[in-house]
Amino acid sequence: MTAATEPEVTDSLLMNVERTRTILAAEQLDGVIASSLENYFYFSGIWNFGFEMFPHNAEAYVVARSDEPTRGTIVSSVGEADLTLDSYRSISGVRTFGSFFRAAPSGAQLDAREARIQAITHNSVASSSLDALVAAINDQGLTRSAVGVDERSGNKTLLAQLRERLPDAKITPAADILRRIRMVKTPLEQARLIRTLRITEAAMEATIAAAHPGITERELKQVFETAIVAAGARPAFSFIRFGRAMAIGQTPPADTPLAARDYIWFDVGCTYDGYRSDIGRVVAIGEPSPKLRKLYAASKSGQERALELMRPGTPAQDVFDAAVERVREAGIPDYERHHVGHGIGIEFYDAPVLAPGVETPLEEGMVLEVETPYYELGFGGTFIEDTVVIRGGGAEILTRIERELRVVDG
Amino acid sequence: MTAATEPEVTDSLLMNVERTRTILAAEQLDGVIASSLENYFYFSGIWNFGFEMFPHNAEAYVVARSDEPTRGTIVSSVGEADLTLDSYRSISGVRTFGSFFRAAPSGAQLDAREARIQAITHNSVASSSLDALVAAINDQGLTRSAVGVDERSGNKTLLAQLRERLPDAKITPAADILRRIRMVKTPLEQARLIRTLRITEAAMEATIAAAHPGITERELKQVFETAIVAAGARPAFSFIRFGRAMAIGQTPPADTPLAARDYIWFDVGCTYDGYRSDIGRVVAIGEPSPKLRKLYAASKSGQERALELMRPGTPAQDVFDAAVERVREAGIPDYERHHVGHGIGIEFYDAPVLAPGVETPLEEGMVLEVETPYYELGFGGTFIEDTVVIRGGGAEILTRIERELRVVDG
Repeated sequence: MTAATEPEVTDSLLMNVERTRTILAAEQLDGVIASSLENYFYFSGIWNFGFEMFPHNAEAYVVARSDEPTRGTIVSSVGEADLTLDSYRSISGVRTFGSFFRAAPSGAQLDAREARIQAITHNSVASSSLDALVAAINDQGLTRSAVGVDERSGNKTLLAQLRERLPDAKITPAADILRRIRMVKTPLEQARLIRTLRITEAAMEATIAAAHPGITERELKQVFETAIVAAGARPAFSFIRFGRAMAIGQTPPADTPLAARDYIWFDVGCTYDGYRSDIGRVVAIGEPSPKLRKLYAASKSGQERALELMRPGTPAQDVFDAAVERVREAGIPDYERHHVGHGIGIEFYDAPVLAPGVETPLEEGMVLEVETPYYELGFGGTFIEDTVVIRGGGAEILTRIERELRVVDG
Repeated sequence: MTAATEPEVTDSLLMNVERTRTILAAEQLDGVIASSLENYFYFSGIWNFGFEMFPHNAEAYVVARSDEPTRGTIVSSVGEADLTLDSYRSISGVRTFGSFFRAAPSGAQLDAREARIQAITHNSVASSSLDALVAAINDQGLTRSAVGVDERSGNKTLLAQLRERLPDAKITPAADILRRIRMVKTPLEQARLIRTLRITEAAMEATIAAAHPGITERELKQVFETAIVAAGARPAFSFIRFGRAMAIGQTPPADTPLAARDYIWFDVGCTYDGYRSDIGRVVAIGEPSPKLRKLYAASKSGQERALELMRPGTPAQDVFDAAVERVREAGIPDYERHHVGHGIGIEFYDAPVLAPGVETPLEEGMVLEVETPYYELGFGGTFIEDTVVIRGGGAEILTRIERELRVVDG
């Protein structure tokens, strides 16, 4: 098979094809099996909701050769076979398993999509997911090859079962390798991440516009989530809490009314077209207290120090060290933190994490959260979290929402 | 410890305490470890969103004795420690692990909840989740006991690790035992399931009210999901498709306008207060075709045959056999199906499934979906799915939305 730089395949290809080929080859893998929501999506273009609805037993796979990673074979239950209609056009085939019944009376006039589902679900259906997976491995010519397996499958004994069925193959875990591939985002992925950010920012603005003394946390959360779904996105986490509640802020929202001179903490994110968002802010209701101003300034200074260092080649841990040091210098002398950011993509926490011990150098095209939150029991805290993309010259901030301490009438 | 029939503990206890004790004792287990979203919630009352956001590495546990299952010890990351504030009041303690920083300056005036978080996160924090879990097992006096472990943890090698750390304990998998315990719903669980149904039904009614020729699937889905979040619930699956699209209906919604004389397929569900819903219907736009009327009548007749048989003692598989036979007699001679319903609770598919080979007898207090859907490529299909609770005298339908073929102006 030939290696083309640009895939000739589809307008919805998420994958960084060259990077995928290069990393799999460097790991001496002839092929790979994707088995989790995120990797199945990356290798097929299909968002399989079964992984979310049935996290303990969902099974769906893509088997792909390292040299042709967009031409994989999909392994799908018959029940979810309709989802395969919207895969990358480059996918070379679908193997189905299990039982689910869609009648197709003889003489029925089927369109192309319906005929496709009839073909893959009425014939050659394997009796087990493992049988279908082995058939797909055979389709890809990988039964005697080195195959990296995403061990994040709903089938917890997948690797052992594959080793038994394919004694001539070399089966090794590959979830971390796949996370490494997905660290660098293609232009399409960046565009989707930006669209998800814009939806989130618009929902935050709608929420801030609705914020007035007397409204409750629960009401504001509903304003936020209504704006998210009205944009066609899916709520994920919507932490919108008042002042002091920030430090214990993951508990359910309260019905306590917002007070003048208090502040609102946002740590919110959603999912759109398979990509995630994550934004943090505090918004003061009326003139902020000197303490809140001081904390916000220190936290933001630390975040900006991180941004200065974020360019291709900088080790993730160096960003952490510099950001924490700066927050301490800038006004929170005892500041402690376990990370100051993380990749974002199909997962809310993609690699790398900006944390101690993480030597991974930043690369052009990575999209990361950068945050220096401070939580203080009895007070609340401060928070600024933005999304950036690493360009050749440094970090470009993708979030557009105001980064200064926002003050609304209170 | 003494065995009291009624827990003296909390107003938000979900657990069926006597059933839990009885089944764990029959399995000769001295204790149990909950490790998944659903079982952690059942044994603690805490909805840990980490299991949803970080499905591959979320870890949170409850270790409980079989004779005192509501008095477990929670194992939580420091980062999620705030969630433990809203556990069952009967919980006997919390063990924390990991690192997350919430400052607590000396002299800070903390309220009871803040002081509690300070106490469990500033002292005795274990360096690993396994260390914290072993400490909790020790707290419960179970280090030399027979302990059933929910193997659905984010830690895929949990059982092996526990066997190594606790050589005198007998560690066995327990996820299926815990599913069996949760099959029968307490009155509080039934009330929550009903509330989730009512939210879903109201959202369906809002969607039906918005249905008119010209509106698109995407627009109707947004009407539905907006109503779900406005009620404080979380969308889960919102399959709202037009006619023929039903048979390949899990693909994304289309922008095709609704036509007069077409019909709308609903298969929708949401999550509220930890409990799920799942309702199916078709709604005709203008006078339904004779074919749709015939299919709906046959499907509904099969569902009603299932309902007739659903009483304490009936094996699940008998319900399946009778329902499928009736659909065939009533107008779809080639009808085939892999199940005709399933339990619903904290999981969308709780046990038992109404399917061939499932001998589980129905019990009073089970809450189940009952459905006889028919999918036909090139046409669409028909669908009626209701939620019922098993009472001493038979199945009581909990859904209130119209069960006859609904016709709206078109």
